[in-house]
Amino acid sequence: LRELELIEAIEGLLARRGERVVRWIGDDAAVVRAAALSVTTIDTVAEGVHFELSTHSPADVGWKALAQGLSDLAAMGARAGEAYVSLALPQTLGAECALELMRGMEELAERESVTLAGGDVVRAGALVVSTAVCGWADSEEELVGRDGARPGDRAAVTGVLGASAAGLLLLQGEPGAQRGGVRDDLVERHLRPEPRLAAGRGLAAAGASAMVDLSDGLATDARHVARRSGVELVLRAADVPLARGVEEVARASGHDPRELALTAGDDYELLVTVPPPRCPQAEEAAASADVPLTWLGEVAPGRGLVLLGPDGQILTGFAGYEHA
Amino acid sequence: LRELELIEAIEGLLARRGERVVRWIGDDAAVVRAAALSVTTIDTVAEGVHFELSTHSPADVGWKALAQGLSDLAAMGARAGEAYVSLALPQTLGAECALELMRGMEELAERESVTLAGGDVVRAGALVVSTAVCGWADSEEELVGRDGARPGDRAAVTGVLGASAAGLLLLQGEPGAQRGGVRDDLVERHLRPEPRLAAGRGLAAAGASAMVDLSDGLATDARHVARRSGVELVLRAADVPLARGVEEVARASGHDPRELALTAGDDYELLVTVPPPRCPQAEEAAASADVPLTWLGEVAPGRGLVLLGPDGQILTGFAGYEHA
Repeated sequence: LRELELIEAIEGLLARRGERVVRWIGDDAAVVRAAALSVTTIDTVAEGVHFELSTHSPADVGWKALAQGLSDLAAMGARAGEAYVSLALPQTLGAECALELMRGMEELAERESVTLAGGDVVRAGALVVSTAVCGWADSEEELVGRDGARPGDRAAVTGVLGASAAGLLLLQGEPGAQRGGVRDDLVERHLRPEPRLAAGRGLAAAGASAMVDLSDGLATDARHVARRSGVELVLRAADVPLARGVEEVARASGHDPRELALTAGDDYELLVTVPPPRCPQAEEAAASADVPLTWLGEVAPGRGLVLLGPDGQILTGFAGYEHA
Repeated sequence: LRELELIEAIEGLLARRGERVVRWIGDDAAVVRAAALSVTTIDTVAEGVHFELSTHSPADVGWKALAQGLSDLAAMGARAGEAYVSLALPQTLGAECALELMRGMEELAERESVTLAGGDVVRAGALVVSTAVCGWADSEEELVGRDGARPGDRAAVTGVLGASAAGLLLLQGEPGAQRGGVRDDLVERHLRPEPRLAAGRGLAAAGASAMVDLSDGLATDARHVARRSGVELVLRAADVPLARGVEEVARASGHDPRELALTAGDDYELLVTVPPPRCPQAEEAAASADVPLTWLGEVAPGRGLVLLGPDGQILTGFAGYEHA
């Protein structure tokens, strides 16, 4: 019965947004007015693997659990819709902690006009939060997959990279970035990643040929695009835009800053390929979404990812940093 | 990289069914052609809480994890569509075990023409499987909630109850049900519950006013309908249809058989309320789906659930059996 009370308390802090949701929490399933295409993903964060309650507040965990799926929708160019949340809670975790987690998730949901339309709360041996996020599109032409990159396209990333990894290093007690503002920014980027929904839709509408969100790190996610598109991605490592303070934190903890930015995950920026005639529109779309866009390289015939050093030499050996 | 190999192996055993799924595994999100209304739910099973690997094979766990959500769709009268799966795997669990789990889930997906269209595989401190299931309907009139029961309606359950609880008792080493066939049936009902999708759609089309699936047990789930509909449900406990062997197993382990059937969960049958003029159609719908339908009571003005004993007396005190 304590579980039912917790569920009621969670219901009490959620809001239904927009006109889509016909039935939600309280029935066997939620009922939502659909657009022509649903765009759906599920993502999971687990304590001890994706976060620690010593460095992440429950609200941070809830925010991040939703941000992952929204970032996937951003990479498809979809409109965000509803989310469905599973909370697996260990006995040791109090109800207040679970509510706090849901408050953090609802905070991001409100910001992105998402309704948390359903969920499940169970006991488990570990804190595990799964979030299925459903977005919508009116036609296939609105959406962008990983498989559309073609030789001759240019490749770019939104935003600046390495912030999340540097923020995590700071949370874990690594030195560097003494200036308070910089430190706070980096930590915030790790704890409260911002899905690039507006930029994703704008880039899709501008004519992007492929897109992926940077959840596993640019080096890994670029390989996904190369493999799925059947092309080679050639990226200039020296042009990777670093977030302010990343260089300092990386060096203080013995990492190469650009390697950190290339291989550490959780930045939730977008890697996008664009046919040259559409590049001006892509730049406008990013500017409209108030997000920097940095051209990093080109798509070539072939397979896989090639990273170029400052003198155009091919970089190898990127096993230096493994993101926890 | 072992995780990527596991994901590829999982992809290899999944099939795309029907014409709805435009993009699936391999992109940031799956893209599905929608009907007018999406009907979505998420459910989670955790080791040590909802199953033990000593009594449940990984394939049983996968089957059950999908069956829960499909049963929710059945209770709404929705058509089954796609499922999205999150596997949180402890270090101790091998890749073969995870694949076996997905094979069990795919077995049920094939049977119900469901596509496992996306998923996430992560490490975690415990084995936790979350499944978001998306169904479809063309109009609100096709669907049935928990809130539509009205005084004068009759109440019925599909199938026979108590089988899952008795099966679990047998798996846990309780005596009873010596005859092999009966024992196997009860254990099968626990390990491989069958969502009543055809019956749910048929009952909804026949004019059911409210419906719920029996996941928490009839006594609890009937209360959900009563509360959401703002009515009193009056059910005759003596008329609850018991599965073959439940009486024997319950008595051998010191439980009252009917109390077991009323309070133990996981039967995944449907409790339905029907306005009297539509009762013949409801009976026909159940017969068409090859599922028994047993009339158990009526809807009255008031609130909550009233269980009647064999002489019409009101039963109280149902704390006797708590389902693990």
